[in-house]
This record gives sequence, structure tokens and C-alpha cells, in this order.
Amino acid sequence: MSVAASERVYEARHVLNELFNGVGAENVCFTSNCTQALNTAINGFVNKGDHIVISCLEHNSVLRPVHLLKEKGVADYSVFDVGKTDEETLLNFKNALKSNTKMCIITAVSNVFGDCLPLKKIGKITKEKGIVFVVDGAQGAGVLPINICDWGIDCLCVPGHKGLMGPMGTGAIILNGVTPRALLVGGTGTHSKSYIQPPGLPEYLESGTLNVPGICGFCEGVKHVMKSGVENTYFKERSICEYLYQSLREIEGVKVYETSKGSVGALLSFNVLNMHSETVALKLAQEGIAVRGGYHCAPLAHKFKGTFDVGAVRVSPSIYTSKKDINNLLNLVREIAFYNNI
Amino acid sequence: MSVAASERVYEARHVLNELFNGVGAENVCFTSNCTQALNTAINGFVNKGDHIVISCLEHNSVLRPVHLLKEKGVADYSVFDVGKTDEETLLNFKNALKSNTKMCIITAVSNVFGDCLPLKKIGKITKEKGIVFVVDGAQGAGVLPINICDWGIDCLCVPGHKGLMGPMGTGAIILNGVTPRALLVGGTGTHSKSYIQPPGLPEYLESGTLNVPGICGFCEGVKHVMKSGVENTYFKERSICEYLYQSLREIEGVKVYETSKGSVGALLSFNVLNMHSETVALKLAQEGIAVRGGYHCAPLAHKFKGTFDVGAVRVSPSIYTSKKDINNLLNLVREIAFYNNI
Repeated sequence: MSVAASERVYEARHVLNELFNGVGAENVCFTSNCTQALNTAINGFVNKGDHIVISCLEHNSVLRPVHLLKEKGVADYSVFDVGKTDEETLLNFKNALKSNTKMCIITAVSNVFGDCLPLKKIGKITKEKGIVFVVDGAQGAGVLPINICDWGIDCLCVPGHKGLMGPMGTGAIILNGVTPRALLVGGTGTHSKSYIQPPGLPEYLESGTLNVPGICGFCEGVKHVMKSGVENTYFKERSICEYLYQSLREIEGVKVYETSKGSVGALLSFNVLNMHSETVALKLAQEGIAVRGGYHCAPLAHKFKGTFDVGAVRVSPSIYTSKKDINNLLNLVREIAFYNNI
Repeated sequence: MSVAASERVYEARHVLNELFNGVGAENVCFTSNCTQALNTAINGFVNKGDHIVISCLEHNSVLRPVHLLKEKGVADYSVFDVGKTDEETLLNFKNALKSNTKMCIITAVSNVFGDCLPLKKIGKITKEKGIVFVVDGAQGAGVLPINICDWGIDCLCVPGHKGLMGPMGTGAIILNGVTPRALLVGGTGTHSKSYIQPPGLPEYLESGTLNVPGICGFCEGVKHVMKSGVENTYFKERSICEYLYQSLREIEGVKVYETSKGSVGALLSFNVLNMHSETVALKLAQEGIAVRGGYHCAPLAHKFKGTFDVGAVRVSPSIYTSKKDINNLLNLVREIAFYNNI
């Protein structure tokens, strides 16, 4: 039974390595969520006196660990703004770099507004400068064609339960030639007699009992995503977002947030003017529509887009969202906006 | 759906708090396993210059994080031996304490040999001296009547998937009036606008998406354990162990390891003389009997009992293990020992 379980876990490593064009299944280490993966990277690559660069779209799973390193006096960090074009974004990124920049962490897709950064071009710069390039794949994995080798990513962090269709409580840190110090040490089932965490991957980053049932589900999710085809998923979800975007723009009293030019994820945010985003989200929830109001654990992104006061209503369709679902949403938003205006 | 999920997670906190007589459901924080709980406690309570005391029975999930703190120059540690009696154990424990001892971490049950330490008496001493008392409940939870308030435990770490009958990949850190620094920070879904991890429990120690399906299973496991009755479980499992112990002792060429006097867990270890423990475990596995050979991630315990060379074969029966199962095991061990002797 134990061998059979190991084989299933290995299969999960293998499919994740395939999906993201990694450098080998043993570099796929399982975590309990994307946050654990990001904390491992952020704390594990940085030494005292280092500098970190993050984008203005990062989630609290990046901002809080980085800010804590600053508070502890371990490392300083800079935040760069996303530009109106990829060129402007790259210039902002380069201007944020310092001689002691050790690592940059950038989300594949803003979890609030859908903006994407030019990751492949950033990866070229980090490679030249020897900076560890960490990508937060929370919102992008399974939807964007994230490519570790081609984009020059040193460390990709992903959750299992969003675009990769696995269960909650799963995630992975996928490495490409560099290994962060382990955040957790303990029983690895290997080199049991040693007082020191054994250095080999994936065990080095996987102390304690793995979430084997969760990983099996994660594996099936990734296989499903690969079967559907990431490009196909992206095309379908973007079509839904485009339709939603154009339709929301036409509703009086509604503001839809535009993304920067360039590639974009499969989600969008809007507000009903003079109404808190959480009020709108609650009204929609009462009609069975699951969107997320509030701040999405991303204060930087809300500051950047000017929504730090009321937050925003985020809509994140999947390939299983139908046009009928979107029309239901639109009708309700029209109604909410109408009664709010009179 | 989100509210319903939160209610289920809260129910899980509640039943764990009940089972271990904790000080409130909000002090039950979920982790991905017992190792994450222990790493959180070990790294989160200790400051530079502190001293830690651990027993000679601790698992690598305790030994490795403590040893790493020593290697980093953060904290030193001492290991005390279990005595032949509780009095001797308590004396050894007291002798290991220093003026700068901040924390002690002690397993409720040795995961290799079943020895128990006098936790309630240790808890009295730590309370008097203001030492943080961390208990590793990996092997004891659900079998021994671990009682946070009555035993003076400050922090109990448990896995979901052993005696608590939950799925792999679940665990909890249960606090009693003290809070370790968070090992992981990130999105908590609370105080989203803050760059700093919000201090309230349980969110402070639960960054990122929780393993909700796993926690639901964990909750059902704990409810099952409470329905069966911990005392009843202990009585049944100990009866099986007693029978197994007496029977193994009578087999020529087999050594069964005795525990120290005092209370004892529901497991035991043995060896077939002149045969590696992993060879014996493999032979048993081939006949469908799941025991564990080797070192059980517990080098200290094997050194202490003199089995650091060949390890031991650990048998850990559950309440669902029948006398027939044990007789099958005994017959096979007799056979292995017999053919090994001729």
C-alpha cells in the first residue's frame, strides 16, 4: 500500500513537471497550499542584507512574508508599478533592481484585476543578473502557458485548488536548479539516523506526512487540465471575460477595471458606483452567484488601481461557466445598479 | 458554500478542543501535519540564547528543528534520558533544565517502543518555572487521555491521520494561553489591507487556503474517536499489545523491547536476532501484514534502547486489529525466526 501511494505521488510530480516544462519530477515538492510554497521560497533564498523586488500586484502571501523580513531587519524590498505597456513595466522593473537584489517575486496574473506581467522578458533579465526569479502561479497556473524552462523561472509556486482543478489544501513548489533552505524540517523517511535534514529533493522540502489523498486529487486535476488543453481553457475563459467586460461597460453606474496592455488573465473586477464591493457580492451570493468582494488579500493591487477604499467585485469564470450564467450575473448587476441610482 | 465550509472547519476546532480539554476552539489551528505544528512551536517560541530540553525518545520532527536552531547559533538543547521509573525520569528532566531553558518538547508516547513519560508531573514543573511545555501527540493522540488544562500543556501538536482517524495531510497545533510566532504568513482572509499578519487566533497561524476536505475528514475521525471512547480504545489496544508481547517473548531468537515502568502506549517493537529489522518487515509485508522496520525517524530512541544498528520492527495495532491478525503475525514471526536459526 505504501509503495502504491508513493507511485501515485510520483505520478503527480511527473504531470506537474510536464505541464510546466520543468527540469524533472524530483524538483516538484508538495506543499499544503501556494502560501506555504511562497513562504518557503521567500525565506529560503534570502540572506541577511539582501534586497527583494516585487510587483505592485502581489498578494499578501508575497507581501506579508517579504514585509516581515524587512521588519526583522533581514532584507529590504522594493515594489515596482506595472506600466501601461510591457516596455514601461520592464523599465520600472529594471529601475527597482539594486546591486544586492537577490530575488524577485512576481505573480503570473493579478488575482484582482487580471493584469499579466511580461514574465519571459523579466526571466531573461534575472538570468543575466543572477537574480532568483520566483513566480506566484496562484491565479495563472492551468490558464496561462507558464513555462519554467522557456521563461527562465527558477521557482514556481502553485496551489492545487484553482486553475489546476485539485482539492483545497494542496500546492507545490517547483524548482529549476536552485533550492531554498527548508522552512520545515523533520521526518523525511530518508536518512532516518541523521540529525540533519537530508539535502536530496523532493524530500528536503517535504517533512512529515504528505497529504496523499489530496495529492492524488491534485494529480487528477492536472491531468484533466492537460486533457482540456491550457490554450483552449484560456481561449474559452477569455471569451467569457471579454463578453462580460463589454456588457458591464454598458451598464450605467458600473465601473469595470481595465488591465494594462499585453497579455491578461481570465478574470476581471468591477464596482457599482457608491456601493461597497462586499454589499454587491453579498447581493449576488443571495442569488447563487459566487463572486468575491472586498480586498482579495491584495492591498498593493487595490492601491495601484485606486480601489483601496471600497475594494472591488471580482468575477473569475471557469471553462464550465456558461453564457447563461454570465447573463444572469449581468441582469442582477443591472438591477443592483438601477435601484442604487434612483 | 463558503459559510458552510467555515462552519464545518469550526466544528473540527470544537471537537478537538473538547477531546483534549483545551481552552477554546479558536486556539485550535490547523496544519498540514504534526511536523508543521512542531516546527511552528519550536521556531516560534524560542529566541536567541534560549535553551531547549527534549527527551531521548523524540522523533526527527522534534530533533531536526531543534538541532537546526543549534547549528544556526540560535538556541542550544539538552536531551534527557527516560529513567527506569517516573521518579528517575523526573530527576533526569530536572537535571537537564538550565536557567535559560525556554521550552521543553516531549512526546506523549515513543513512536518506536511505546514508553510514556510522566507528562502531568512534568507540566507541574514547567508551570512553576515558566517554561513552555510542548507535547508531541503524534503517537498518543486518540489513545492516551491527553488533557491540556489538567496536565499543564502549553502547546499540543497532533497529526490527523493516526489515532485521530483522519486523513493524511491534516494536523493541528492547540494552544493554551501562549502563541508562537507564525512560521508562515500570508493571506488570512482577515484584515486584508494590513501588510502585517493579523494577531488573532486561529487565523494568525493559518495562512493560505486550508485543507477543508481534509479537515472535514479529521473532524469525523475525532468524533469517531470520542464515540468509541479514548479509555476504551486504550484498553483494547493495550490488551492486544500485552498478548503480543507475552507471545513474542516465548519465541526463540526473538527479542521484544520492554518499556520503562509507568504508563505505556499501544505499540511495541521487536527484532529477530541476527536479521535486519527491514528484512523482517518486508517478509511480513509480503504476507499482507503492515508493520514498520528500520529507524522510524527516531535515531535518539534507537540509540537509547541499543537498536541503532539494525533498527526494530514496530507493531502498532488499532482497535480494529483482531486476535486472528495477531496470531497470523505470530505464526509468521515464528517461521522467520525458525528458518533464521537453522
